[in-house]
Amino acid sequence: MDFQLVLDQINTELRPLLGEGGKVASYIPALARVSPLQFGIALRTCDGEVAQAGDSAVPFSIQSMSKVFSLTLAIKALGEALWDRIGREPSGSPFNSLVQLETERGIPRNPFINAGAIAVADRLVSLGDGKAELLALLSRLCGEPVSIDTEVAQSEADTGYRNTALANFMKGFGTLDNDIATVLDVYFNQCAIAMTCEQVACAAGYLCRDGKHPLAGTPVLSSAQARRVNALMLTCGTYDAAGEFAFRIGLPCKSGVGGGIVAVVPDHLTLCVWSPALDETGNSFLGRQALELFVTKTGLSVF
Amino acid sequence: MDFQLVLDQINTELRPLLGEGGKVASYIPALARVSPLQFGIALRTCDGEVAQAGDSAVPFSIQSMSKVFSLTLAIKALGEALWDRIGREPSGSPFNSLVQLETERGIPRNPFINAGAIAVADRLVSLGDGKAELLALLSRLCGEPVSIDTEVAQSEADTGYRNTALANFMKGFGTLDNDIATVLDVYFNQCAIAMTCEQVACAAGYLCRDGKHPLAGTPVLSSAQARRVNALMLTCGTYDAAGEFAFRIGLPCKSGVGGGIVAVVPDHLTLCVWSPALDETGNSFLGRQALELFVTKTGLSVF
Amino acid sequence: MDFQLVLDQINTELRPLLGEGGKVASYIPALARVSPLQFGIALRTCDGEVAQAGDSAVPFSIQSMSKVFSLTLAIKALGEALWDRIGREPSGSPFNSLVQLETERGIPRNPFINAGAIAVADRLVSLGDGKAELLALLSRLCGEPVSIDTEVAQSEADTGYRNTALANFMKGFGTLDNDIATVLDVYFNQCAIAMTCEQVACAAGYLCRDGKHPLAGTPVLSSAQARRVNALMLTCGTYDAAGEFAFRIGLPCKSGVGGGIVAVVPDHLTLCVWSPALDETGNSFLGRQALELFVTKTGLSVF
Amino acid sequence: MDFQLVLDQINTELRPLLGEGGKVASYIPALARVSPLQFGIALRTCDGEVAQAGDSAVPFSIQSMSKVFSLTLAIKALGEALWDRIGREPSGSPFNSLVQLETERGIPRNPFINAGAIAVADRLVSLGDGKAELLALLSRLCGEPVSIDTEVAQSEADTGYRNTALANFMKGFGTLDNDIATVLDVYFNQCAIAMTCEQVACAAGYLCRDGKHPLAGTPVLSSAQARRVNALMLTCGTYDAAGEFAFRIGLPCKSGVGGGIVAVVPDHLTLCVWSPALDETGNSFLGRQALELFVTKTGLSVF
Repeated sequence: MDFQLVLDQINTELRPLLGEGGKVASYIPALARVSPLQFGIALRTCDGEVAQAGDSAVPFSIQSMSKVFSLTLAIKALGEALWDRIGREPSGSPFNSLVQLETERGIPRNPFINAGAIAVADRLVSLGDGKAELLALLSRLCGEPVSIDTEVAQSEADTGYRNTALANFMKGFGTLDNDIATVLDVYFNQCAIAMTCEQVACAAGYLCRDGKHPLAGTPVLSSAQARRVNALMLTCGTYDAAGEFAFRIGLPCKSGVGGGIVAVVPDHLTLCVWSPALDETGNSFLGRQALELFVTKTGLSVF
Repeated sequence: MDFQLVLDQINTELRPLLGEGGKVASYIPALARVSPLQFGIALRTCDGEVAQAGDSAVPFSIQSMSKVFSLTLAIKALGEALWDRIGREPSGSPFNSLVQLETERGIPRNPFINAGAIAVADRLVSLGDGKAELLALLSRLCGEPVSIDTEVAQSEADTGYRNTALANFMKGFGTLDNDIATVLDVYFNQCAIAMTCEQVACAAGYLCRDGKHPLAGTPVLSSAQARRVNALMLTCGTYDAAGEFAFRIGLPCKSGVGGGIVAVVPDHLTLCVWSPALDETGNSFLGRQALELFVTKTGLSVF
Repeated sequence: MDFQLVLDQINTELRPLLGEGGKVASYIPALARVSPLQFGIALRTCDGEVAQAGDSAVPFSIQSMSKVFSLTLAIKALGEALWDRIGREPSGSPFNSLVQLETERGIPRNPFINAGAIAVADRLVSLGDGKAELLALLSRLCGEPVSIDTEVAQSEADTGYRNTALANFMKGFGTLDNDIATVLDVYFNQCAIAMTCEQVACAAGYLCRDGKHPLAGTPVLSSAQARRVNALMLTCGTYDAAGEFAFRIGLPCKSGVGGGIVAVVPDHLTLCVWSPALDETGNSFLGRQALELFVTKTGLSVF
Repeated sequence: MDFQLVLDQINTELRPLLGEGGKVASYIPALARVSPLQFGIALRTCDGEVAQAGDSAVPFSIQSMSKVFSLTLAIKALGEALWDRIGREPSGSPFNSLVQLETERGIPRNPFINAGAIAVADRLVSLGDGKAELLALLSRLCGEPVSIDTEVAQSEADTGYRNTALANFMKGFGTLDNDIATVLDVYFNQCAIAMTCEQVACAAGYLCRDGKHPLAGTPVLSSAQARRVNALMLTCGTYDAAGEFAFRIGLPCKSGVGGGIVAVVPDHLTLCVWSPALDETGNSFLGRQALELFVTKTGLSVF
């Protein structure tokens, strides 16, 4: 299949819609001032073929997409023991809800809602320097240095009342072992990592290659672990729209409020799309359409 | 792949565990007296190859597995309009919960929770004789007559207070158009349909064949519609264990409290496993293990 | 105190506000067509002094105010045993909510939310002919025949999906012993009883007289039981506005969607006010203001 | 009435039950090590008559009873404007729940649940030095210095994850204006104030005297304000047992996990009872019984 042609077509079809729908995340200034008139898409196949179109080389804030990689670090280090403190079910509630956390006595539903990602960050703190290890993992995975946008990280910390509430709430239930400020520092910083579509498409490559490093071929996760991350992405990766994504797109995806979405076609390729304006579910307005187009044009869907 | 060998191995490995875990559904006498010491498994590939092992020819109450077929009838007749009254998101709540229904003003989260299936039944009543059409569809799909266990249907009606509550609640919100008793008659009867593993594996065949009839090859659903049913099964098909099923098994599945589970390997095969004892999530205790073994032995998983 | 003067003043002050706020209940035609331009008030002291003003002799649908009297019958017959199936706490949720009922496994929070009143009706059915006994009690209490508006009762039954849902839900949990249709027949009929302000003020008289019949002086309830009904009215009698009523009015009250409110000044008097237009909490818009004025003018409040 | 005799009788009746039921609060060491074998009771009438029995002169941690006094300061300073950010309805949920706070977008249900009291503390911080003013108020009200148990305050801060979560959650919704640490410092310190039954019974005296200072007779609150505090105590003052307290005791009460309960008989007297062992609703096991006995013996109840 000529993936470069497919991405070019998608870029051509969607670019006229830039500014036609969705809104850039506005809860912190550094995100609010990103121009919504940007759209990028990139993919990398299991065989190392790459394709890209539009603003695929522009760095953006990966935000919740980082949860895939922090989860990967935690699974790698802890295996099944990770699941003692974090569930694996779709939440049916908003990503930053405290309600379910109260009903379920501090155990977050899955690692992709904020509470779950904070619990993962706590595990990384117990294991060492979570922030540095996450950056190191991402840099290895894309073969070039990746960095944190410190202005974004600071803004996240300054306005992160809801996340601080989630962390304190879990600490009260015994879900977190470490100092709340240290845990949240990892979490706020991981959300502030900046990457390009091309970097993300490459970095996520182990998820379509049975867990093997996209460049080196060495194991990042076991095959079963990689498939389970995909399963979590499909059932829990796109906030309250997980069912809708499965229904219309049918691929494991993880989105972020920076406007990026990473998608996996198991055994075939990984794909990253980015456009900053978000729809009312918090997913990239054009990113979602790009993925629908991609699936329609290529027939690649897990179902 | 020698599927007959795989099913024989699974049967051999699991049969010693009969009676070792789980409990038969006890809310109606007709289900409570089914012997837990039964295990059957059957599959049918896209190419018409069949394999079966254990009690694969014993009829059992398909219960909530019927929701896949009533949904199929409704999608076929109504297309996208069906979704005006039913959502497509995982519920995060028990299958018979009223809580979410209240918050979301009478719109059920998805067609596989009870409220959603009752809303689908209402659509079938508007379209004609839902009960007869469902039986006709199933009989056509397995190439032999399928019937309702009237004792089970009567018991469901006699004890169906929660489902009657759900129906009245939705009626109060305007989600149902038809007389409640008529709608529930369809619902209680569809749950009481009796089929064997072999029949179910055959009947569900359109879900792995781009919507085409497993025997005749004529379209039951469009390819996109069939894939979307699969997506719904994966995200919402196994009660509160949907995430866990995706994580461990990675196939679209729909289970029933009769102990059956139907699973789809898109583009490959459909599979039905049955063992009456249920685990605490309401899914067949051995059925779940059988599916895990099947995926491990064959490597067939969508992820 | 010259109560006649007080009521006349209140009538004079509030009558100009008729039609200025609130809306008549519209869920059934028989209530929807009641003119909102009516206001009546009546009281009766422990000593038998009476006072009234405005439309105090016009019969209206007592609706949820009936819950005070059905509760009285049930307490009289069952004593403390009544509380095995019904709680005594404020609900913090809307009067017809199913959410709390699900969390608390079918035990309604208190006898004044709909679920609680239906559970009380079930107790009355177990004890005999609830409908007839309630009418008999009310007729005895006001010294003249009281009757049911059968059109209202039929409309309640025709549109009572939410209440039917509540009844089925509780039946599923074992909270109700009797046939749902019979229980709901009592409930729908009690809501459809028509009385005047003067009748209600007299009938409730036992609540300010240590449980003694307002005319005959014979015991209706024990002193402790009467005081406990007052306590329930104060904490749970006015839907979601119970705190606000306690804060601003400070008297045990029970309101109905017909626009009536009955209030008790323990050891002094009982008072009934009626005006059909309801505020957004479902309480009579002018009735509430009338009670505030009454408390301000007389200084009579339990606090 | 011979109140001294009544209190002596209550002390004599209940003292044999010390150690027979309930458990001392154990979430902080300073409370956990308080001996449960203590019981004190004291009252002060509007006319200045006093009576006391048992351990009425032993200081204990007033905990949530402090919320009555911080509310008093806030009402005094802000009047009705206070209610822009805090509701006045019973919560129907546990005292430290976040669920309702999420549904109601950060507005706490009433000033006596933790979230509400933290919102009150925020108002006091905006007005000045909340901690000092609260101590000053209490010292003036009992005519002798009152102080904070700094060990308890420190322990509250060290383990106050849930309260920190509540504060951050509200801050995210804009309910709090001030720095979270400063607000919580006021809150944790007010909970750690130590007083005796005799002091509390005196200090609360304005609540039974139309808002007038119990010793000086000068206004602390207006009469209407004092009555409204009483109404809030009755509907919201005893956690999830407010309905039960109203039903059995029928007096405005506010309890604390230190085992104290302050009660008001409007226009008559204020009463404080203390015994550290708590029942399952978090109210003093013997304190509750003492209040029931008091009401039975004296007939003093608002209903």
